Amino acid sequence: MASTRVPSLADVEAAAGRVAGGVRRTPVLALNRADTGLAAEIVLKLELTQHSGSFKARGALNSVLSLSPGVTGVCAASGGNHAGAVSWAAARAGLTADVFVPSNATPAKIARIAEYGGRAHLVDGFVKDALEACLSFAAEHELPLIHPYDSFETVCGAGTAGLEIAEQVPGADLVVVACGGGGLFAGLTTALTDQVVVQPVEPELCPALSRALQAGEPVPTTVGGVAADSLGAPRIGEIAFAAAQRSGVTSILVSEQSIADARRFLWATARVLAEPGACVALASLLTGAVGVPPGGTVVVLVSGGNNDSLPD
Amino acid sequence: MASTRVPSLADVEAAAGRVAGGVRRTPVLALNRADTGLAAEIVLKLELTQHSGSFKARGALNSVLSLSPGVTGVCAASGGNHAGAVSWAAARAGLTADVFVPSNATPAKIARIAEYGGRAHLVDGFVKDALEACLSFAAEHELPLIHPYDSFETVCGAGTAGLEIAEQVPGADLVVVACGGGGLFAGLTTALTDQVVVQPVEPELCPALSRALQAGEPVPTTVGGVAADSLGAPRIGEIAFAAAQRSGVTSILVSEQSIADARRFLWATARVLAEPGACVALASLLTGAVGVPPGGTVVVLVSGGNNDSLPD
Repeated sequence: MASTRVPSLADVEAAAGRVAGGVRRTPVLALNRADTGLAAEIVLKLELTQHSGSFKARGALNSVLSLSPGVTGVCAASGGNHAGAVSWAAARAGLTADVFVPSNATPAKIARIAEYGGRAHLVDGFVKDALEACLSFAAEHELPLIHPYDSFETVCGAGTAGLEIAEQVPGADLVVVACGGGGLFAGLTTALTDQVVVQPVEPELCPALSRALQAGEPVPTTVGGVAADSLGAPRIGEIAFAAAQRSGVTSILVSEQSIADARRFLWATARVLAEPGACVALASLLTGAVGVPPGGTVVVLVSGGNNDSLPD
Repeated sequence: MASTRVPSLADVEAAAGRVAGGVRRTPVLALNRADTGLAAEIVLKLELTQHSGSFKARGALNSVLSLSPGVTGVCAASGGNHAGAVSWAAARAGLTADVFVPSNATPAKIARIAEYGGRAHLVDGFVKDALEACLSFAAEHELPLIHPYDSFETVCGAGTAGLEIAEQVPGADLVVVACGGGGLFAGLTTALTDQVVVQPVEPELCPALSRALQAGEPVPTTVGGVAADSLGAPRIGEIAFAAAQRSGVTSILVSEQSIADARRFLWATARVLAEPGACVALASLLTGAVGVPPGGTVVVLVSGGNNDSLPD
């Protein structure tokens, strides 16, 4: 199983070399102040255009390419995006993928798994239950488990998006990102250390980082709501918790309504059809829960687009 | 009414200065050969992320900003995208906009007109009928008519997307673009003259340029099919016809099925939700109707995203 060693910037740079040519350099789109009504320019990092429809392809490919020689298959569990990404990455490397997802994952996410060549195992319950089933399967079949957020390789892979942000938006004053298990938050913080603050945002109904920061350690967290399929980690990752403590950030919480509003805004304003979990970061800005530096530039990670529907 | 003078590169550059800060510099996304199965890299120019959801904002804003002082309102007719764009551009400039669209325009396009501040007039029939109604209205109310594709200002504005392509993809071997009335084709050809061939593509059911090239002059053309709401011009523009003759291109035709397939491909591969007319250029490549230079780079204009639904 993958280690939870806390990565450094050099580790993220090594991952970037490993996945180069395999993952997409996703584009950025600037929205001006008139578009948003905010006092800063908002630059969207369109990670929904990544392979498999979310940033998860980065960590999945880095993990697969870091395996020992001779491995013929992998397994994984997630709310759906990581499962699809691991299916995609495994197929690229000629490996089998057994992936475990909650049976209430969105049909789009379940359908993608087979399209990418993975074998989907549906598990009643939440991500936590899928992860437990996957752990049993991994032990029984002696397969490496690609963790959705709390492994060194997954975090390093996610961090490669941060290296791109540093190149694409060199003058950024703030980076805002949704936090579920925290792999993306930890990766971006590691990649952008000493350059810019990375602000994690959670749905009120998926507050794993908030709870951990209150408790002083990762704790089991009950999750739900519109973004639970992508951000419903049962507890914050050890790596993300360490990253949050090191950088001194607090987690900002946003309401269900604000997430739906941000999703509608993205579609109406820029024809970007993001999934609810990918709208959490923008929601924090549009509601004012996260303040913007006047006249500055704020990067918002739009993390995935595995949708089944247009906004109402 | 706007002139049909044929623009030069310098005219497009002047338009770019006029609309700077008003239109978005839209991003590009590279798809590699494994993604498409083609022998060239395909770079998508994501013009659906433009204001008003299509490239039409460029020509509309350039037209509005080119009006004589003292004008208080404008009118326009189109299948919906130009109407929305003119509504948006007029509102930016503090002008009224009366826009005429076929009553069978997509609900998304009609809804946007009011959201942008325009007054929508629904006309039974096709773009041709909306244009006739608009001409009467313009004469009666002494309002300038912003032509959807066959005016100097509209073509110059559309061409600003070509200047961005030249900067974003300097090594492009070919640019492929859908052609309805031909304003975008003419603008891109003008902007990229001497640099790269701009290949126009039409739906089999909207063949205005093909018919004109056969006839030796623009001729009335019957239109229909999945892309008629954005590409259903009743005849090719004089400016586009002149541009096609000057550059010596022929128009390539693609089937209805190939357009639907390309739309599904864009969504599945990159979570880009383009409208049918915006998938015509890619369809010509995926079907092999337009060949790619092996090992080269082909830019595909994804021209709009005013959709009501996800692909089946």
